[in-house]
Amino acid sequence: GTYFRVTTFGESHGGGVGCVIDGCPPRRRLSEPDLQAELNRRRTGQEGRTTTNRNETDTCRILSGVTDGVTTGTPILIFVPNTEKSRHDYNEMSMVYRPSHADATYDMKYGVRAVEGGGRASARETVGRVAAGAVAKKILKELSGTEIIGFASQVHDVVIPEGMVDYNCLTQDEVDRSVVRCPVPEYEEKMMAAIDTVHAVGDSIGGVVTCIIKNCPRGLGSPVFDKLEAELAKALMSIPASKGFHIGSGFAGTFLTGSQHNDPFFVDKDGRIRTRTNQSGGIQGGISNGEVIVMRVAFKPIATIGRKQQTVTRDKREVELKALDCHDPCVVPRAVPIVEAMVSLVLVDQLMAQHGQCNLFPINQDLQEPIQFPALV
Amino acid sequence: GTYFRVTTFGESHGGGVGCVIDGCPPRRRLSEPDLQAELNRRRTGQEGRTTTNRNETDTCRILSGVTDGVTTGTPILIFVPNTEKSRHDYNEMSMVYRPSHADATYDMKYGVRAVEGGGRASARETVGRVAAGAVAKKILKELSGTEIIGFASQVHDVVIPEGMVDYNCLTQDEVDRSVVRCPVPEYEEKMMAAIDTVHAVGDSIGGVVTCIIKNCPRGLGSPVFDKLEAELAKALMSIPASKGFHIGSGFAGTFLTGSQHNDPFFVDKDGRIRTRTNQSGGIQGGISNGEVIVMRVAFKPIATIGRKQQTVTRDKREVELKALDCHDPCVVPRAVPIVEAMVSLVLVDQLMAQHGQCNLFPINQDLQEPIQFPALV
Amino acid sequence: GTYFRVTTFGESHGGGVGCVIDGCPPRRRLSEPDLQAELNRRRTGQEGRTTTNRNETDTCRILSGVTDGVTTGTPILIFVPNTEKSRHDYNEMSMVYRPSHADATYDMKYGVRAVEGGGRASARETVGRVAAGAVAKKILKELSGTEIIGFASQVHDVVIPEGMVDYNCLTQDEVDRSVVRCPVPEYEEKMMAAIDTVHAVGDSIGGVVTCIIKNCPRGLGSPVFDKLEAELAKALMSIPASKGFHIGSGFAGTFLTGSQHNDPFFVDKDGRIRTRTNQSGGIQGGISNGEVIVMRVAFKPIATIGRKQQTVTRDKREVELKALDCHDPCVVPRAVPIVEAMVSLVLVDQLMAQHGQCNLFPINQDLQEPIQFPALV
Amino acid sequence: GTYFRVTTFGESHGGGVGCVIDGCPPRRRLSEPDLQAELNRRRTGQEGRTTTNRNETDTCRILSGVTDGVTTGTPILIFVPNTEKSRHDYNEMSMVYRPSHADATYDMKYGVRAVEGGGRASARETVGRVAAGAVAKKILKELSGTEIIGFASQVHDVVIPEGMVDYNCLTQDEVDRSVVRCPVPEYEEKMMAAIDTVHAVGDSIGGVVTCIIKNCPRGLGSPVFDKLEAELAKALMSIPASKGFHIGSGFAGTFLTGSQHNDPFFVDKDGRIRTRTNQSGGIQGGISNGEVIVMRVAFKPIATIGRKQQTVTRDKREVELKALDCHDPCVVPRAVPIVEAMVSLVLVDQLMAQHGQCNLFPINQDLQEPIQFPALV
Repeated sequence: GTYFRVTTFGESHGGGVGCVIDGCPPRRRLSEPDLQAELNRRRTGQEGRTTTNRNETDTCRILSGVTDGVTTGTPILIFVPNTEKSRHDYNEMSMVYRPSHADATYDMKYGVRAVEGGGRASARETVGRVAAGAVAKKILKELSGTEIIGFASQVHDVVIPEGMVDYNCLTQDEVDRSVVRCPVPEYEEKMMAAIDTVHAVGDSIGGVVTCIIKNCPRGLGSPVFDKLEAELAKALMSIPASKGFHIGSGFAGTFLTGSQHNDPFFVDKDGRIRTRTNQSGGIQGGISNGEVIVMRVAFKPIATIGRKQQTVTRDKREVELKALDCHDPCVVPRAVPIVEAMVSLVLVDQLMAQHGQCNLFPINQDLQEPIQFPALV
Repeated sequence: GTYFRVTTFGESHGGGVGCVIDGCPPRRRLSEPDLQAELNRRRTGQEGRTTTNRNETDTCRILSGVTDGVTTGTPILIFVPNTEKSRHDYNEMSMVYRPSHADATYDMKYGVRAVEGGGRASARETVGRVAAGAVAKKILKELSGTEIIGFASQVHDVVIPEGMVDYNCLTQDEVDRSVVRCPVPEYEEKMMAAIDTVHAVGDSIGGVVTCIIKNCPRGLGSPVFDKLEAELAKALMSIPASKGFHIGSGFAGTFLTGSQHNDPFFVDKDGRIRTRTNQSGGIQGGISNGEVIVMRVAFKPIATIGRKQQTVTRDKREVELKALDCHDPCVVPRAVPIVEAMVSLVLVDQLMAQHGQCNLFPINQDLQEPIQFPALV
Repeated sequence: GTYFRVTTFGESHGGGVGCVIDGCPPRRRLSEPDLQAELNRRRTGQEGRTTTNRNETDTCRILSGVTDGVTTGTPILIFVPNTEKSRHDYNEMSMVYRPSHADATYDMKYGVRAVEGGGRASARETVGRVAAGAVAKKILKELSGTEIIGFASQVHDVVIPEGMVDYNCLTQDEVDRSVVRCPVPEYEEKMMAAIDTVHAVGDSIGGVVTCIIKNCPRGLGSPVFDKLEAELAKALMSIPASKGFHIGSGFAGTFLTGSQHNDPFFVDKDGRIRTRTNQSGGIQGGISNGEVIVMRVAFKPIATIGRKQQTVTRDKREVELKALDCHDPCVVPRAVPIVEAMVSLVLVDQLMAQHGQCNLFPINQDLQEPIQFPALV
Repeated sequence: GTYFRVTTFGESHGGGVGCVIDGCPPRRRLSEPDLQAELNRRRTGQEGRTTTNRNETDTCRILSGVTDGVTTGTPILIFVPNTEKSRHDYNEMSMVYRPSHADATYDMKYGVRAVEGGGRASARETVGRVAAGAVAKKILKELSGTEIIGFASQVHDVVIPEGMVDYNCLTQDEVDRSVVRCPVPEYEEKMMAAIDTVHAVGDSIGGVVTCIIKNCPRGLGSPVFDKLEAELAKALMSIPASKGFHIGSGFAGTFLTGSQHNDPFFVDKDGRIRTRTNQSGGIQGGISNGEVIVMRVAFKPIATIGRKQQTVTRDKREVELKALDCHDPCVVPRAVPIVEAMVSLVLVDQLMAQHGQCNLFPINQDLQEPIQFPALV
């Protein structure tokens, strides 16, 4: 972000992980339990089935930027100590490039890398994102009643049919009730079965997280390089294992004609300009139009699997690799709060940008003389 | 970009359009014909069939930053005057919100907008992107032999099957030979037929641009928020009418298991570490691995159509709208050079970042003493 | 700036100069005459005496970002064509490094440079700064009645004594009435005499511009790296020929003790917290406190002089150089509007940042429950 | 910085202070003792005389970004725990605005502030700057033999005369040998006497830190807004208590004529283009020219004094304030390593920018064909 600026730090096996948030609005109530709730969501939804069994408790501490329970506007430091101190035996790993991991590319880029725990590529880096996202989420809720809700809409070949989830009614509770974060019970069972099956054979599967934004203020985003969908795409494609991003109709929209795809405008009973359909996914010309924003993110099957794989070592010997400890067979359930966090960070940054530029002058006051094309929204 | 910084300016019916490039490497030969070639590519591929018949000639001038045919390292100003001076009669347009255009959202954001020619949302803004991209493309070619080649891989329901285009052999000439920028003659014909059909009924269709990067240097991108695929996604989702982005296996990868999706490493006959498959699409852990980078971008059917549509005016009257002048029935062919330009801008910026950070010290010189995990690439 | 982002372009002998402003608040009346007034101020104050006799008329055109006399919020392109087309005979110059110019350092940095007209180092680049500053100045005036007034407080050894100018009463008209932009008539005459003397012998002199900000909103700036005085220092030290920056007491303050330097607080008759003295210069802890902000900028004697100088050529021959055309004997009068422009650009950016971060939530609404340390300002 | 990005965090009485460095070159040896040496310099030079007696030991820990003693290129987290846990009794302070502190302006900006320990305005925030600066300093030394040396050139009215310190011979050891960091023994004694005198009466004094850069690579900085002196000015004016910045001749240069001020070029015995004088202070046209860079920074007398002062409380009562605990009577000695740290951070960032832009293509290789104005440096 440019205004709400987040830096994450830490590695899986260093002293801890966390983030620094610079530019947070002052005078907002904020406490560790606010963050802990989201951090816990990131850890759960697993029950020995879908995710790794690390014993990290992820207990966060706010070390600066909050006084007497209120944000001061100065940098907020959130720190989550690593509790699992034992040094894993990564000797084997240290020389072998795990297929489709970042081991080889880190060496290509930096000429050196932290071997323990995957360094920055570790999923544990996302703790800082979720903590910062929790702050953003709270601000959005309080300021404009904006809610960001993600859910598993696909796990491997189990796909919730289009239209089965009513975005206007969906709540986060409905999602969190489900172990795999699927709000449709019938499909939840199928997803869990798919995960169990692949887990049994030491393999992994991917899927799709759908994320919606309800009550998104109109006017967020900008017209050219920093379109709202471009910022969202960048944020979501920065999550480990993501392979694709759709806004609104996405790739399916390429099979429609313009007359099918265009969203007709109408005036609703409250006098607001709305669209009858939402192929645009809540964004037109790079700017939010007040409809529900709908995104989908593809996650590949996680790269660490329990089966033998062909690979090479750092010194270019060809070897076979078989992972010792068992990771997530499916990352999708745990990706949900990370997707929500990244979306929240983008939105709060855009909201601040919009407020700074377009609300600097009160909208009613600065158009005293008639101008030719006044806004009537 | 952060190092190769581009600002575009101008509107469809202002004095002209163009860009300022700040941070360009000095001492590179650059002349107007270098840019003109790409600007002409942006205008062609239409032949009265696929794109609008504006009579703009798009003749560019370099107004600063180049002396005696060589870049000076200071800001490069590229200006393309608008030749079509006649003021269109946009009276009707000025009060009507065209469905799925940016008219309404501009008013929502700014409370005012330039009505003529679509303002910044005009496709003409992309002239500046293509001009800047031409500079980036030239640098990439000269520095590392890197080539960026885009092509139409889908128009409406005409889809080139996976595997039919060999990315290792594809050349830009093969693509440019085709009016719709499809390198497979059989599918080119089908695409043109689809465009003709929809054109006849005053409707529009979308499609997909696939873009590959050949000879991409290893090590570009960074591990966390600024992953290479995240930067590419942002750049490509900022192109008007784009609705989705895939890297490598994309959404199709969600149907595979980890053992199918992982790309096994091997050592090729030149002693380079390579992958046997390329589901990763040339990027692992946010960093390029030297394989061909493969992206796909979805473009929706363009919103301006010749058929009657329901909409509202600025003052909230419900009306019917029928566009007078005929726009592109399909944006895909003309989107190809814009996609290539945006990819080039991201790459050259990443290359400079990589050079500034990781090549500051010569790689052979700074590892005099043995360290535990040297790079062996 | 981060919010109000300005890029300048152009060179002394290219097609023209100007700027692109991105992030300008929308719905503000803006026209070419608004800008022209400041551009004319930049050219005047010379009368054959203090500055060069270039025949550039500096007529600006707004090419985008304004519609029907109102800013649209999208990038504003301001272009000032160069009218003096004749190519100067810079052959001599092209091989000789002029002492204390940027000729040598450009070659050191870029390995190449534009010889004609001094390239980016030309004072003509400041046209874009003044044009952008005029937009900023207008916004500040309208939003908060903030005025930025600069004046010549020293020319060579003619120094207006401390305390002689009452900052609370000073107006821009008083300054502009003077050819050398000195508001104290007695000293104005001495300054003009000093300029005439040095002009007669083909030499040059420097001086000091003092700049004040009246009615600066409280709370601008930030506590650590981006202190308001740090941003102002950067902006002002980026003006060609500036050699030093003072805020408030500046270097003179180093001769005081803490008890002399501290500014005692009091409550004024309007119930506002004020300071009795203003050694701080209107900024405390990096943040504006509502008092008049007082800065001083040192300008060296301009490097182009009519006397013989020892120097070297690009190919390392030692030669004597004598400038042919006569430049400014003193840059101070013409620097005044440039100083004001740079200060305006910093302030409007800080104002937008402050609004985006700290006014996102209405100040009265977000402190419903009592907190321990409420703001009482 | 843009390339070498530093975020500091923490407050005087929170859990700790420190910084995150993003973008550090990889494969550099780095260990805690490297940083500790600079952190210790920040704490010493006081001996009960010049600075506060806080019992913080400032023991730093590197928590990420370094593996096996080598930087990995990923974010480096440096953490310095606060050891002094006892909560000071700041009750009195919490309602009183200390004159010339940031108490009032923080409330003006944020509407709330951390009362304990001065929040972000605390001098303890500079621990993070010094730690990050130590990393930068090490890189500069290793890459180009660049040394950054600061010293106390003035304490109150004790001023080392111009020319008494030979910048070409000065070493950091000579400076550190002195308690007040003054390399001229005669003046060191006078400075200490001045500090003792003011300390006895509970008052404070200011002074000047001069900082030089030896072996600065040529070509650093850029021509317009981001001139090297502008970046240095911003960095140094962001240090608490700084009130002015001079480069080269500074304000004294305003009393010279152009013929006195211009630095004649010559070719030295090694065939390098040099200047005979150095009024420019090592920077011309915003770009370093290879001569010694000379800066001076003014520090006001510190605001916390032991004498009674008039002030107001948050709720606008006028009161008298007398500080309980004794702070630094003079900040100058302790400011020296902070000045050096800020200069180092600017330089390493500029070096990386220069390398990324101007050394992307090898300088010998890219000028194969003769061009009109080749670099001869």
